[in-house]
Amino acid sequence: MTTARGGRRAAPAEGHAPVSVPDEATLAALDAQWRAANYLSVGQIYLLANPLLTEPLRREHIKPRLLGHWGTTPGLNLVHAHLNRAIVERDLDALCVWGPGHGGPAPLANAWLDGSYTDTYPDVTRDAAGMARLFRQFSFPGGVPSHVAPQTPGSIHEGGELGYSLAHAYGAACDNPDLLVACVIGDGEAETGPLAASWHANKFLDPVHDGTVLPILHLNGYKIANPALLARIPEPELDQLLRGYGHDPLYVGGDQPAEVHRELAAALDTALDRIADLRWAAREQGVRARPRWPMIVLRTPKGFTGPAEVDGLPVEGTWRAHQIPLADPRGNPAHLRQLTEWLRSYRPAELFDEAGRPTAAVLAGLPTGERRLGANPHANGGLLLRELPLPPLAECAVEVTAPGAGSHEPTRVLGGLLARVMAATAERRDFRLVGPDETASNRLQAVYQATDKVWQTAILPVDEHLAHEGRVMEVLSEHLCQGWLEGYLLTGRHGLFSSYEAFAHIVGSMAGQHVKWLRTARRLPWRRPIASLNYLLTSHVWRQDHNGFSHQDPGFVDQLLNKAPEVVRVYLPPDSNTLLAVADHVLRSRDYVNVVVAGKQPCFDWLDLDAARAHCAAGAGIWEWAGTENGAGGSGEPDVVLACAGDVPTQEVLAAADLLRRHLPELAVRVVNVVDIARLMAPEDHPHGLSDRDYHALFTRDRPVVFAYHGYPWLIHRLTYHRDNHPQLHVRGYLEEGSTTTPFDMVVRNDLDRYRLVMDVIDRVPGLDVRAARLRQRMAEVRYRHGRWVTEHGADLPEVADWRWGALP
Amino acid sequence: MTTARGGRRAAPAEGHAPVSVPDEATLAALDAQWRAANYLSVGQIYLLANPLLTEPLRREHIKPRLLGHWGTTPGLNLVHAHLNRAIVERDLDALCVWGPGHGGPAPLANAWLDGSYTDTYPDVTRDAAGMARLFRQFSFPGGVPSHVAPQTPGSIHEGGELGYSLAHAYGAACDNPDLLVACVIGDGEAETGPLAASWHANKFLDPVHDGTVLPILHLNGYKIANPALLARIPEPELDQLLRGYGHDPLYVGGDQPAEVHRELAAALDTALDRIADLRWAAREQGVRARPRWPMIVLRTPKGFTGPAEVDGLPVEGTWRAHQIPLADPRGNPAHLRQLTEWLRSYRPAELFDEAGRPTAAVLAGLPTGERRLGANPHANGGLLLRELPLPPLAECAVEVTAPGAGSHEPTRVLGGLLARVMAATAERRDFRLVGPDETASNRLQAVYQATDKVWQTAILPVDEHLAHEGRVMEVLSEHLCQGWLEGYLLTGRHGLFSSYEAFAHIVGSMAGQHVKWLRTARRLPWRRPIASLNYLLTSHVWRQDHNGFSHQDPGFVDQLLNKAPEVVRVYLPPDSNTLLAVADHVLRSRDYVNVVVAGKQPCFDWLDLDAARAHCAAGAGIWEWAGTENGAGGSGEPDVVLACAGDVPTQEVLAAADLLRRHLPELAVRVVNVVDIARLMAPEDHPHGLSDRDYHALFTRDRPVVFAYHGYPWLIHRLTYHRDNHPQLHVRGYLEEGSTTTPFDMVVRNDLDRYRLVMDVIDRVPGLDVRAARLRQRMAEVRYRHGRWVTEHGADLPEVADWRWGALP
Repeated sequence: MTTARGGRRAAPAEGHAPVSVPDEATLAALDAQWRAANYLSVGQIYLLANPLLTEPLRREHIKPRLLGHWGTTPGLNLVHAHLNRAIVERDLDALCVWGPGHGGPAPLANAWLDGSYTDTYPDVTRDAAGMARLFRQFSFPGGVPSHVAPQTPGSIHEGGELGYSLAHAYGAACDNPDLLVACVIGDGEAETGPLAASWHANKFLDPVHDGTVLPILHLNGYKIANPALLARIPEPELDQLLRGYGHDPLYVGGDQPAEVHRELAAALDTALDRIADLRWAAREQGVRARPRWPMIVLRTPKGFTGPAEVDGLPVEGTWRAHQIPLADPRGNPAHLRQLTEWLRSYRPAELFDEAGRPTAAVLAGLPTGERRLGANPHANGGLLLRELPLPPLAECAVEVTAPGAGSHEPTRVLGGLLARVMAATAERRDFRLVGPDETASNRLQAVYQATDKVWQTAILPVDEHLAHEGRVMEVLSEHLCQGWLEGYLLTGRHGLFSSYEAFAHIVGSMAGQHVKWLRTARRLPWRRPIASLNYLLTSHVWRQDHNGFSHQDPGFVDQLLNKAPEVVRVYLPPDSNTLLAVADHVLRSRDYVNVVVAGKQPCFDWLDLDAARAHCAAGAGIWEWAGTENGAGGSGEPDVVLACAGDVPTQEVLAAADLLRRHLPELAVRVVNVVDIARLMAPEDHPHGLSDRDYHALFTRDRPVVFAYHGYPWLIHRLTYHRDNHPQLHVRGYLEEGSTTTPFDMVVRNDLDRYRLVMDVIDRVPGLDVRAARLRQRMAEVRYRHGRWVTEHGADLPEVADWRWGALP
Repeated sequence: MTTARGGRRAAPAEGHAPVSVPDEATLAALDAQWRAANYLSVGQIYLLANPLLTEPLRREHIKPRLLGHWGTTPGLNLVHAHLNRAIVERDLDALCVWGPGHGGPAPLANAWLDGSYTDTYPDVTRDAAGMARLFRQFSFPGGVPSHVAPQTPGSIHEGGELGYSLAHAYGAACDNPDLLVACVIGDGEAETGPLAASWHANKFLDPVHDGTVLPILHLNGYKIANPALLARIPEPELDQLLRGYGHDPLYVGGDQPAEVHRELAAALDTALDRIADLRWAAREQGVRARPRWPMIVLRTPKGFTGPAEVDGLPVEGTWRAHQIPLADPRGNPAHLRQLTEWLRSYRPAELFDEAGRPTAAVLAGLPTGERRLGANPHANGGLLLRELPLPPLAECAVEVTAPGAGSHEPTRVLGGLLARVMAATAERRDFRLVGPDETASNRLQAVYQATDKVWQTAILPVDEHLAHEGRVMEVLSEHLCQGWLEGYLLTGRHGLFSSYEAFAHIVGSMAGQHVKWLRTARRLPWRRPIASLNYLLTSHVWRQDHNGFSHQDPGFVDQLLNKAPEVVRVYLPPDSNTLLAVADHVLRSRDYVNVVVAGKQPCFDWLDLDAARAHCAAGAGIWEWAGTENGAGGSGEPDVVLACAGDVPTQEVLAAADLLRRHLPELAVRVVNVVDIARLMAPEDHPHGLSDRDYHALFTRDRPVVFAYHGYPWLIHRLTYHRDNHPQLHVRGYLEEGSTTTPFDMVVRNDLDRYRLVMDVIDRVPGLDVRAARLRQRMAEVRYRHGRWVTEHGADLPEVADWRWGALP
């Protein structure tokens, strides 16, 4: 296994017979494919014209600005050619996740070769004209990105921000028992945290119901400017690491193409044979032990087959091969000459006919139809997506005889809905719940009536709800949860991510990338809509009673609202039935990232199911029963609007409305609740934005609005600054004041409490009388008394705890 | 090494003699300490009064709401007691990073025991009254958090958001050659990506110049509701994993206290002996091979020594021990009885005298003075902080004969400053640069004149700037970079994190937590100010020419501006000299998180050093030379304000001002540049906020303002919505439109280009004549022509590329 560098052989594992090496004709076909893909890759990086080198290369054939990356590309082309052989020989249903950054040229080249590119983009024909287009468009204005991207056929993984390839691969493999998901992991990417955590995803892959991930760790040795860690540690240490991750690694390495072909072909055959054996053992023989899945370590030079030296400095096999090995072929005749030699070294005349079409030698080894990596329907998941069987909401809803008469834990009620979805998908297996060890903590545990938490290592008698085939995925890594779910959705299934609100920020960057993916994919007609990525953010900022300041961060919403409005949706249902109505909507939706913020603590039930549905469909509405405008002033505009978004702000606004009704009954108060936060935006800024007319119908054109918002108050200002009544808008929200304290103390510390809201109203409505001034004074006194009471008793004032809507005279 | 569970022994490594086990008296003292800390921990979770159980425990002695976590605590107490022994016996200079979540009670208990708590908080005396305070304040309103937090003496690590302990520990160890940083890693936390990546930090620790990290992986088996992965994989697999990470693990485990004490004491002695040997070899013998540092795997039951069963269900050793094992001692007499037994099981009468003071048996084994873990000055880094030796800026500044006459790459100029700082700290070693493989890509490579990149594994002849003792830390993990730097700063040193702007989001959550830490620490008088955490965000949104959409995200600033304004500072220097002036300021500052956004591409030099200093000190100012208000209208207000923040927007605004000067010379245009974005805020919202008067002096009270901003445009609205002239404010910025394209095409796609800005001005200034209308038409035509030109030529229009300020008539 560890002979000299360049001479490693794939060692047969114990109990496995050695695999025979493919014959010379097969190897020659492999090499032709690889050379063709390498030629097409270099062409994409450099050429504006003269794609087949039918005339001597001149400076005007070279792109004016060279924006691309060669370093990782030949390695990806190598893997692609070998996967093609295995797909054809074994009729494999396979995907490949291309993890390394800047790998764009490789899958583009290969998709063009096998025709899937032309199938997707008919104007890029499989001939000289199309080759010229393929070259020109790469990393060119109006063209395609230099990374693997949504535009790349066969891809479910953006190659820009690194670290998520393996998690995506596992997500794709879940519940696709016949699928092989190869995953090329770059040695740079392998240094990231999310990737490092993802190695343990193999403890969650069920060999019976899931497909298989074949990690191919590509050690080309260098990142942008540094050696890669895993490429530099001694190989015995690397071997321990990979075995410690639970894999059975096969090693391939060298810098001689023929030798690498032989070894990689043998290693891939060994790996696929073992995978077949392990699947068979689990599925046919009932073996329950966690398999030691194979993986491949591929060690080839960075920029393999590219210029060995440029300007007297070594390039191939060093970090200098990362980007553009020959920097200036337009200006430097030596570079131009070297580029010509480089391109000719692939012997294009053997690879493409005079019309620029791939020759029979190249085409012979390529898969066809949906077996092509660029055309596998799993990589365009919308093709496979089925409607999620959602139960009638009435089965899950809570009964509401009067607003605030009862209370429930909203997420527990949602658990009932999710349990039904789990039960209804028990056979189809196309719905998963992911979360960082919080499903029960977030009170969704009803799902365990229908499924379990997936777990492939030892299960002890004391454990509960663990099973090999469970569809709840819990691991204490938000990154892994997010990556799994993305991979699962992108391959045409459904799911939900439940998280502590604050810790959604951990995957803020991943979420932003997924929005970018969807925004781009929506503009590609061939990409079919996929199920939305749904977040349930609970255990939220206002109820961190025993976690305190570090667990308080409602800013995930702010971050996502910076992203493409055609993709981002944010909902703050104020009670159990509205949460059900929102969940029903988001689980049916397509191509969105939906953020649902809801509490897990007991919360008054305000709306019955019908009212909840209507309210959520409107997204924002007047709660007439809670205000006084009709009883008092008649048909005119109210004196003040009390608006709210989020469960705790809604409770405080209703308590404030209650106080005002009792103590200043002649004040016409309107209560507005906002569920869909984008309603506040202008219609030109978000598809859900209310017109000015509808906005003013809710919030008035000129009356004071006191808005109690769940998160950072300035978000509401940023969404509404252009509205006519914005100068009248006063927002309360989270001000980064918090600790381990009582729920009511939290709202007091952040000036979001009922007493403060009453004071805000009194301060803003002109012409109130002395009774109002006295009420204001009384409110200030209660707040002060509350503060002392809390620190003395560790509890909220009894009158706060005992408050019920409408219960007091 | 792997006998039956509970009977593992620390295996002596090859070449090491077995370590003798401490004598029985020492073990008894250890156990007394542990029991005392456990007693104090249970007391914190449960007791409101009667701390010494001087009377029978009654319901009113119990806290009304139980908010704390027992599960991880006895393990942390165990490690603390054993570290104490080692510190005393070896006179160790040691810190401990307490990684597991919810571990707050443990370091609080131990700090109270050794007196460091009372030294820090004199009202919490080391007697019965103080013990009562210690108990009451824990996770109580007005008290202290349930996690390890800034309030905890001896801590540099918040135990709330998980995954950063090991990175913090390595940061603390860097450049502290005599320091031992023990790091307890929870088995939950170990599942996170950042922690998984941090294991490889040992490849960056220089055995000569750095201290040592001793990881203690605490496998107590369970998280909130699930088994922990690393606790459930077979021990040989775990051993391979840890050896694969480069460690030499020692195993300790059991559920019998006496046995665990013996084994842990022996393992700790073995580990410390090996560390001493490895340091000696590297420092005295010149051994250059990367050491295989020891680590300890500690396997004890979750909730060790707590109730074995409650209500007929197993608790100790299961996930049920995670939080409050006895849920209702106030309401359930059986729980109250069990709590009494539990507390008495520690035999408090042996541990505390009648006055509640720790007995001699407990005190005997405790370190004193600064050797106490609760009092080590490294954990209150401001005590050790020295002024950073910054060079005179004139040494680094670029010469500016006239605005826009020359151009430089700002970050390359900054590199000159950083190189001088590196040189000036060569002996002191208290400045580090961290970044994800981007120092050279971000054009800071001048630092390599003064130091190298630290690297402890193989260095090949082809490598450049790698060395064992380098102080540039590059690894492709933003998490690790951030964690290192936090640990380094919190222990009293200086540093800078350079990152691609978009990928700072990867550590958005960590940055938010660090702001929270600083915000809390600033309010604690005993925490001395530390150096600010400085971000250089470069390779920014406008210049992702070859990376495209996935690399475009200017939202890190938005996220941080949601956080405590007393901590967060954001600067957008528009050229090289302003970047120097800002860098000089942020490197001198304390207790802030400074975000500096600056380009690495050639950028016109607008200000000479003196003007740059003055401009940056003001934070925002009128660039009179760029506007026309004085030349045209005289002393009145301008017709329009063109404002800008960021290098690319500044260039476009100046080009627009240039166009207006030439084509509409009678229009009085004011150009305002903003460096310090918080200047836009109200003084009550941010310490840097301008008064309304000063704000209006820049932006006028009623004239149209066209603001070209570097990031998302609504951020400017959110910062200024309360200003009188906000209705006149029109902001251009990044609209999530981008791809691999030319720099100028990027600004066109996002409506931030000079032509669009001229059109914006014409659209907003009332009463302009027909010449203005014609100019507007011409601008629209140029934009259209530009779009076609770009897709045809892959380049910007020549007139764009050739533009120079003031160069045209």
